Order: sequence, then C-alpha cells, then structure tokens
Amino acid sequence: MDILSVMGIIVALAAILVGNYLEGGHADSLMSGVAFMIVAGGTLGAIMVQFPMKIFMLSIKVSVWVFIPPKQDHHAVIEKIVNWSNIARKEGLLGLETISESETDEFAKKGLQLLVDGSEPETIRSIMEVDLSTKEHLSLQAAKVYEAAGGYTPTVGIIGAVMGLIHVMNNLADPSKLGSGIAVAFIATIYGVGLANMLFLPMATKLKLIIHDQSQFKEMIIEGVISIAEGENPRNIETKLQSYLH
Amino acid sequence: MDILSVMGIIVALAAILVGNYLEGGHADSLMSGVAFMIVAGGTLGAIMVQFPMKIFMLSIKVSVWVFIPPKQDHHAVIEKIVNWSNIARKEGLLGLETISESETDEFAKKGLQLLVDGSEPETIRSIMEVDLSTKEHLSLQAAKVYEAAGGYTPTVGIIGAVMGLIHVMNNLADPSKLGSGIAVAFIATIYGVGLANMLFLPMATKLKLIIHDQSQFKEMIIEGVISIAEGENPRNIETKLQSYLH
Amino acid sequence: MDILSVMGIIVALAAILVGNYLEGGHADSLMSGVAFMIVAGGTLGAIMVQFPMKIFMLSIKVSVWVFIPPKQDHHAVIEKIVNWSNIARKEGLLGLETISESETDEFAKKGLQLLVDGSEPETIRSIMEVDLSTKEHLSLQAAKVYEAAGGYTPTVGIIGAVMGLIHVMNNLADPSKLGSGIAVAFIATIYGVGLANMLFLPMATKLKLIIHDQSQFKEMIIEGVISIAEGENPRNIETKLQSYLH
Amino acid sequence: MDILSVMGIIVALAAILVGNYLEGGHADSLMSGVAFMIVAGGTLGAIMVQFPMKIFMLSIKVSVWVFIPPKQDHHAVIEKIVNWSNIARKEGLLGLETISESETDEFAKKGLQLLVDGSEPETIRSIMEVDLSTKEHLSLQAAKVYEAAGGYTPTVGIIGAVMGLIHVMNNLADPSKLGSGIAVAFIATIYGVGLANMLFLPMATKLKLIIHDQSQFKEMIIEGVISIAEGENPRNIETKLQSYLH
Amino acid sequence: MDILSVMGIIVALAAILVGNYLEGGHADSLMSGVAFMIVAGGTLGAIMVQFPMKIFMLSIKVSVWVFIPPKQDHHAVIEKIVNWSNIARKEGLLGLETISESETDEFAKKGLQLLVDGSEPETIRSIMEVDLSTKEHLSLQAAKVYEAAGGYTPTVGIIGAVMGLIHVMNNLADPSKLGSGIAVAFIATIYGVGLANMLFLPMATKLKLIIHDQSQFKEMIIEGVISIAEGENPRNIETKLQSYLH
Repeated sequence: MDILSVMGIIVALAAILVGNYLEGGHADSLMSGVAFMIVAGGTLGAIMVQFPMKIFMLSIKVSVWVFIPPKQDHHAVIEKIVNWSNIARKEGLLGLETISESETDEFAKKGLQLLVDGSEPETIRSIMEVDLSTKEHLSLQAAKVYEAAGGYTPTVGIIGAVMGLIHVMNNLADPSKLGSGIAVAFIATIYGVGLANMLFLPMATKLKLIIHDQSQFKEMIIEGVISIAEGENPRNIETKLQSYLH
Repeated sequence: MDILSVMGIIVALAAILVGNYLEGGHADSLMSGVAFMIVAGGTLGAIMVQFPMKIFMLSIKVSVWVFIPPKQDHHAVIEKIVNWSNIARKEGLLGLETISESETDEFAKKGLQLLVDGSEPETIRSIMEVDLSTKEHLSLQAAKVYEAAGGYTPTVGIIGAVMGLIHVMNNLADPSKLGSGIAVAFIATIYGVGLANMLFLPMATKLKLIIHDQSQFKEMIIEGVISIAEGENPRNIETKLQSYLH
Repeated sequence: MDILSVMGIIVALAAILVGNYLEGGHADSLMSGVAFMIVAGGTLGAIMVQFPMKIFMLSIKVSVWVFIPPKQDHHAVIEKIVNWSNIARKEGLLGLETISESETDEFAKKGLQLLVDGSEPETIRSIMEVDLSTKEHLSLQAAKVYEAAGGYTPTVGIIGAVMGLIHVMNNLADPSKLGSGIAVAFIATIYGVGLANMLFLPMATKLKLIIHDQSQFKEMIIEGVISIAEGENPRNIETKLQSYLH
Repeated sequence: MDILSVMGIIVALAAILVGNYLEGGHADSLMSGVAFMIVAGGTLGAIMVQFPMKIFMLSIKVSVWVFIPPKQDHHAVIEKIVNWSNIARKEGLLGLETISESETDEFAKKGLQLLVDGSEPETIRSIMEVDLSTKEHLSLQAAKVYEAAGGYTPTVGIIGAVMGLIHVMNNLADPSKLGSGIAVAFIATIYGVGLANMLFLPMATKLKLIIHDQSQFKEMIIEGVISIAEGENPRNIETKLQSYLH
Repeated sequence: MDILSVMGIIVALAAILVGNYLEGGHADSLMSGVAFMIVAGGTLGAIMVQFPMKIFMLSIKVSVWVFIPPKQDHHAVIEKIVNWSNIARKEGLLGLETISESETDEFAKKGLQLLVDGSEPETIRSIMEVDLSTKEHLSLQAAKVYEAAGGYTPTVGIIGAVMGLIHVMNNLADPSKLGSGIAVAFIATIYGVGLANMLFLPMATKLKLIIHDQSQFKEMIIEGVISIAEGENPRNIETKLQSYLH
C-alpha cells in the first residue's frame, strides 16, 4: 500500500477546500456538474482518439499501482539467482529444469528455460532484452495515458471557461445570468488545472518510476542468468547483483 | 476498425455540446463560419509552408490509419518465418526462391531475395535497417503534420481572437456591433484549442504509436531473416521472435 | 520550385484578411508601421546577438531553399556510383582519376579522390563523416535562425502590446488617444504571433527537413564510395543504395 | 557552506520586499496565510502522489546540499589512488587488503575489495558502473522532487487565484468583500511563481549539478581502480586522473 | 570583435524606443528604477541559488565572448599539426619535446607531452577526451547561467506586475495612485520579457555556439595528435583535418 499517494490526494484536496472555507467561500461555489462533465468528457474523448485499445485498457489496470505498487524483492531474487548458480555448478544447467517448471515469475522462468536449453549467453541477452523492452514500451505508453490526460485537462478547462464567457457575453442584457456563466467558466479552469496537477501528472510520474524499477529488476535477472550461462562462480554473481540494490 | 477513435471524437464533441446546452446556451452560439475559416485557413497555410509535397500528401493518406489501422499479424509472420527457416534447412537458401516470388509483403520479400542471393548476415541487416529507417522517417514526418497542426491551431485561434477584439475596439461607439466581435474572438479560441486537443494532437500520437509498431514488426522480420542467414535452427528462431509479442 | 510554400503563404494571408473583411473590419485596421517596426526590429536585434556572422549570412542564403529547394537526384547518383564501381572493377581505383576531375558535386569529388589515393575504407568513412557533420551543423544553425526568430516575434509582440497599454494608461484622461494605443498593442500581438506561426516556424522546419535529406543523400554517397573501396560487386552496391530511396 | 545559496535567497527576497516598499506598499499586503496554505498544501500533495516514499525522504535529506554541499577533494583522491597503485606494484594487489579495510569512502572501498579479490578489469567496471548509475538515478529523482515542486507551485497558485476570483464574483453585490478576494487571488499567484522561480527550480538545478559532480568523481575512482587492475604505472594513472580536474 | 552582437543590442533597443516615441510616448514612461530593481534582484538571487560559485564566476568571465569571441585559427593549427607530424617522421616522437615546451595552447601542449611520453593512441584519446568533456561541461554550465537568467526574468517580471496590481487594488479609493501602480506593473513585465529575449537568451545561444566550436577545435587537435601517434603520413593527416574546416 502506497500510503503517500493516498495522503497526497487528501493533503491537496484539504488545502484547496480549507483554503476556500477560510476565505469565506462555500464548498458549493466550487461544485459544478456541468464544468466537470465538460472537462472529464473532453479529456476522455481526446485520450480515446490518442491511444489504441490495448494501451487504453492497460492504463486502467496499471492505475492501481499508484496506490498498491507491484512487489519487487531485490534481496529475495538475488538469493534465488545465487541458489540457481550453485545448482548449475553442482548439477549442470540441466539441474535447473525442475526449478524452471515451478518458477512463478514469467520473466525469470523464461531465463531459466533458456539456460536449460543451453543457449549461448549472447542469445539469452538478446532474447531477454527484446522481451524487456517490448513490455517496457507498452507499460510506458500506459503511464503516458495519464501524462496525456494531464496535458488535456487544462486546455479543455480553458474551452469550458471560454464557453462560459461566450454565454455571459450573449446575456449581458440580463445580469441575473451573468453569475452562473462566469462560475462555470472559472470552475472549469480549476477542474482542468487541478486534475492535471494534483492527479494525472503526479500519477504519470509515479507510474514511470515504478516501470523504471521493474525494468531495472529485470536487468538484474538478465545479468544473473547470463552470469550463470557463462559459468561464473556464485560469490562473484552475488557481488555483481548487489550493485543493483539501492 | 479502431472503434475507440470514432467514439473518442463523439465523446469529446458530446461533452462540449451537452455542456453548452446545460448551461442554457444554444449550439448556434458556438458556430461561426468566419472563425472556422480563419483557424482552418491559417493552419493549413502554415502546414503547407512547413512540409514538402511528398510528406503533405502522405499525411492525408496515413490519416485513415487513425480509424482503420494497418493490419499486422505478429503470430502469422512468426509462423511464416519459422516455415522459411524449415525450408532453408531442407532445401538450402535457394529453396526460398519460389516463396520469395509469391510473397506480398514488400519488406519480407526484400529479405527473402537477399537470402536467395546468398548475402552476408551483416549486409542483410545493413540494407534492411536503412530501408526501415528511411521509410520510418517519412511516416513519422507525416504524423508530425498533425502534431504541427495541433501546434498552430491554438495560436491562429489567438490571432482570430485578437482580430475580433480590435474590431470591438474600433466600434466602441456602436455597442450593437460589440457582441459579434467578441463572439468571433472567443469562438476562434475554442476552435483553435479544441481542434488541437481533441483532434490533431491525439491523432498525431496514435499515428506515431502505429508507426512504432510497424517498425518493431519490421525489426522482427529482420531478426528472423538474419537468423535464417546464420543457419540457426527453427525452434531457436521461434523463441527469439516470440520476444517481440506483447 | 516549391509551389506548396508559395501557396501556403497565400492561403494563410487570405484566411486572415478575408476573415477580417467578413467580420466587417477594414484591412487598414490591421496595418501599423510602428507595430511592425517594433516586432521586426526587436526580433532582428535578438537574432543578431544570438548568431555569429557566418551563420547569420548563411541563414539569408538558405532561406531561398524554402521556395526553390536544392535538387537531389537519388536515382542519378545511384547510377553514377554503380558506374564508378564498374570502372573500378575493370580499370582499378586509379581508373576513377579522370572521372574525379570532372565531377562537379564537391562531396562526391572528395570521395573519388580518397578512392584514387587508395585510402582505407575506415579512413574514408571517418573523413567523409566529419565533413558531413561539420557542414550539417552549420546548415542546421542557419535553419535555427528562423526557429529563433519564431520564438522571439511573439514575445517582442507582447512587449509592443504592453508598451501600447502603458501609453493608454498614461492618457486615461484623454479618451481620444485610447483607441490608437490599444490598436498598436493588439496589432503588435498579431504581427508577433502571425510571423512566428505562419512564416518563421514553418520555414525552420522545412529547412531542417531539406538538410536532413541532404545529409541522407551524402550518407548514400559515403556508403557507395566505401563499398567501392571494399571491392564489392556493382549489383550488390546498387541493392544497398536503393534502400535509401523513398 | 555554500554562501552563494544563502545570499541568493536574501537578494531575491530583498528585491521583492524593498521593491514593494518603494512603491508605497506595506509588507502586510503581500502576506496571506490562506494563500500560502493553498499553494504549499496543494504542491505538497502533488509531490506525495508523484514520488515513492524512498525518494520523498531522500529529497528532504539532499536539500541540505544546497547550503552545505558534500565535500569532494579531487586532488586528495588522485593522490590516494596513485598511492594504491604504488602499493599494488610493490606488494601485489593483495597488499591493498589492509588499506581496503580502513577506507571510509563506500565507493572507493568497493573498488579496493574488487581489486583484492583479483576481479577482471571488465568485471570491475561493470559492477562499479551499475552501482554508480543505480545511486545516481535515485539522487537525480530526489533532485527532481524540487523540479516537480517548481512545476506545481505556479499552477496551484493559479488555482488559488481563480478560487479568489470566484469568491469575488459571488460577492459582486457586497463590494466590501471585493478587496480580500482579489488580494488572495493575486497573492497566491505571487507565492506560486515566487516559490518556483526563486527557490524550487534553482534548488533543483544546483542539486543536479552536485550529483553530476559526484558521478564524475566516482567515474574518476572507477578509472583509477581499473588502471591499477590493468597494472598501469603510477605516473600514467596520475596523468589520466588529472584530466578530471577542472 | 563581434560587431553583430553590438549592433543587435542597438537595433533591438532602437526598435523599442523609436516605436514608443512614434506612438507619442515619452521614454520616461518606460523607466522605473523600482521595476528594474525587482526584476534584476529577483533574477540575480535565483541565479545565485542555482549555480555554484565556480560556475557563477566563470559565467561573468565568458560573457565577454559574446562581444570579443576567443580566436581559433583552424588553418594555422592544421599547419602546425602537419609540421609536428613531419618532425615526428624525421626525428621520432622525442623530436617533439622542444616544441612541446614552447607550445602556448594548453590543450595542444598536453597532446604533445603525451606523444613525447610515447603513450598508446587509445590512452591519448581517452585522456584528451576526458579533459575536453570536463572543461566543456563547465563552460556549458556558464552559458546556462544566461539561459537560466532568460528563464527567470519574465517570471520575476510577472511577480513585479502582480505586486503592482495588488498595490492598485488596495488603493482603488484613491485614483491618483492608480497610475503609478499599473505603470510599475507593466514596466516590470517589459523589463522581464525584454531582458530575456533581447539579451540573456541570445547571449546563451551565442555562448553555446562558441563552446561547440571550441570543442570541435579540440576534437581536431585530438584527431591530429592520435594520427601522429599512429604514424600516419603528413599528407593524410592534412586531408583528415581539413574535413573539420567549414
């Protein structure tokens, strides 16, 4: 559970709402279903045009990571790889076959199978790097859905604002309608700027950092698997992999 | 058919128009042929200065991809390449000659011909990589036509807005003309910001993602053809190419 | 003749002027010698501080390319190089000496001379790549003069606008001067945004695309010359160079 | 002690406050607890969503570096490495064992241990480069916390400003409340723009420069350790390392 | 003497001041010591926080280059290097010892000493490249001081403007003070935008171009020194170095 993400949203919302209250405003004066519909709908539409279905669906799935980041136990995986290298030393690469079958991590399993097949280190690296970068590209695009959303909400907010002002201009003769138009205009701006800066852009960066960590985690596995293929001794492999710890 | 692109445009338009209606405005108040002419004409002109004829025409052609993306069947092509490698094993590289003649994909055909000619793996890679990057550069420029359009519409919208305001200033004495000037001013802004954020910029990114996929697809073909040239066994080639699946 | 560039400028200007006319404004209301002097002079000054004399002069020279792009016949040069490789096969590299003397393209001539001198392929590549990138850097800077101009005109336009507004503020008591001040203010903005988006920025990109094509053209020549130095057969050289066609 | 950082903050604040005073304003007119709460709270919240706990905590720790930069004595470390190479020449790599135990710099100690273990130069480089880049990535993210803060404060300031303006709009009938609304609106803008440009963005860049220096310092150590592993003579090592001095 | 830099500043200033005069404004109306103090002081403070002392001092030193660029005679240095290669051919590398002692250019002297010491070409390249990039990084940071200044002046100008507007708001009852507040507000904007676009940003780019030229000049020296170390013949070295001419 990423407690910081949850608290961050609360802190930001509280700052806005308490600030509004202390100035003597009602929370009501910041609420407008119409303004929200314009900003949310316009942004959603732009996102749908921009991303293919596969990435659009993936972006919904990875959004959870902002609050419940995927687990990656660097220490455990180093221990596991050192263990593999010990087995490979004693029983040969074929000794990894049963371990490969019970391995649950997809990426590590692929590495083990390549070892058992007796592939060349360079082949292993090339296959695993392509796998890593293909998946990384996809995840990064999913994170960029939120980056794009953070780019569109302020501009759609401006469209909402200008529409409100046009409404005001067309009713200059009837001052009673003046207030509502300006309200929607300004509230659309707040929704647009607020959603971008307090939700979408921070989410996008956190997702990118998580994806960077995942890739580095996989790099570590690649390094370990190749070292086993090259027959390096377990102690050296451990030293090498520990450089990835931070 | 990219259903998401179609729905995205509908969702965005609906959000704006329904939002306008709920505020009590008429759809009419957002219509202005003059504002559209300024924004569309100014942007079109800038685009024509910016891009050479070849890229300008290509950008019209690729715009279809946003709604009907080009088909790329990764699984089918892997199967095809594995099949080639089996033939090459049994009948030698010359056995690929008849297949090369009936191959419909231009890029794959080029690879097959290089194999049949008995070219060195490094030569094959260099020739196919140059071909890939030359075509990729051209397609990317076509996608950038929409990126550029998305950059120009808001600024041309501002020109339209300021022209409207000058008109208002020159007619301060005649308040009846005030409304029309401000209307064009604001509507030009909406057209500029709206076209950029709900059409051109999302289109540009979707096109870039499609082009990235095409290049990766071709990378996969290059990898396969080179593996055949190096005489790798079909099972290894399959494993290697499957890393490109996502 | 790049007909698109000429038409682009006409289309953009027409959109603005006809739009202004349809709104009921006079073309006069968009004319201000003072506003033009501020925007043009301020931008010219900034450009002069920014670029050294050599690049400043070159930018004037290359501006012609936007309308009359330099000719580059890929097919002709491939034919020429294949011809050279045939001569080299029959008469040896020294057979290229007379051809080298009559070659008019500076870059190709340099390549021929290196061949005749019997330089190593790696030496030829390194010498020609340095030559290419030195010239490319210079041309790109010349293109960036227009990019920089496109960056400065809007901000100088804002300076003109604010100066106009200060003028208005200082004459609040005399409303008859109000109009002229605001006019200059707004017209300076239009000149700044318009020159940037409908002239300078599109010019800069078109120039960059032309320079990219030139570099790729030279890359093709380098590839051909090196292939001759390596004694490859003419048919292979032709296949290789055709990958550069688009 | 980085005296320039301290003086910089004083100079910037003085310019603002004295400027305000000379215009005839009271310092009071720039103070608003509510505006500060909105800007600080909104930005803090966004930062908390954006960065994982580890980087968030590290960013607090490295903020001290802006005023008390970490010490890095290039001359001393060159002398130290040359000394190691002398010992390695006389006593063999094992002679570095006692020195390795008493070395206080973590990174240098790691290098010494790899030397004592008799690792290959390429292995040493790969292990130490991974260590360097893992730590560098983390520190750079910590610096980017301030960059992000500098990106969010102006936009949150705009949210505060628009909220103030909504408040004003809702109280048009009661002019006595007009002033307070506009005040918060404008002060939130000043806080947002001021914090970004006079504190967060400059801090972020100074931290990045410090981190760049640290990485270069470590590069120098890697170069030295590898040269010892390759058995180069101490005088050459000294020449080599002195290129890192600036 | 870079006459273009001097004329550029004059042209830009003249455009502004003559423009102001032609509109009927007094130069006085653009003068405000307070506005200048706010913009200059705020920017200076931000710069002081952002850059370490060494870079801050260096930025003052290199600012002269904008008007008096450092001399770099490519032709002379090529001649010099060809001369060295002739000596090395006739007298061996040790023959360069006396020349090395009298060489005034620091970088060339370092190269000569490495030659006299009989260092390997790869060692020479690595030592000289590190030297080049260390110094280049420092100079580029000094140029970035002006880029940063150009980024801060407009935003500090906005702070000055908003402060002026707050002042106006607090004195709505006393219209006589209205003018002065708005004046400072607008003048601060002009100073901010003007200093950035007509001085700091152009300076930064010119400095970067000069530094790029310096680095290329050094690259040429490295190439020459290494060619001598590899015993290439003087005529080839001359051909190679002439590719750096533009």
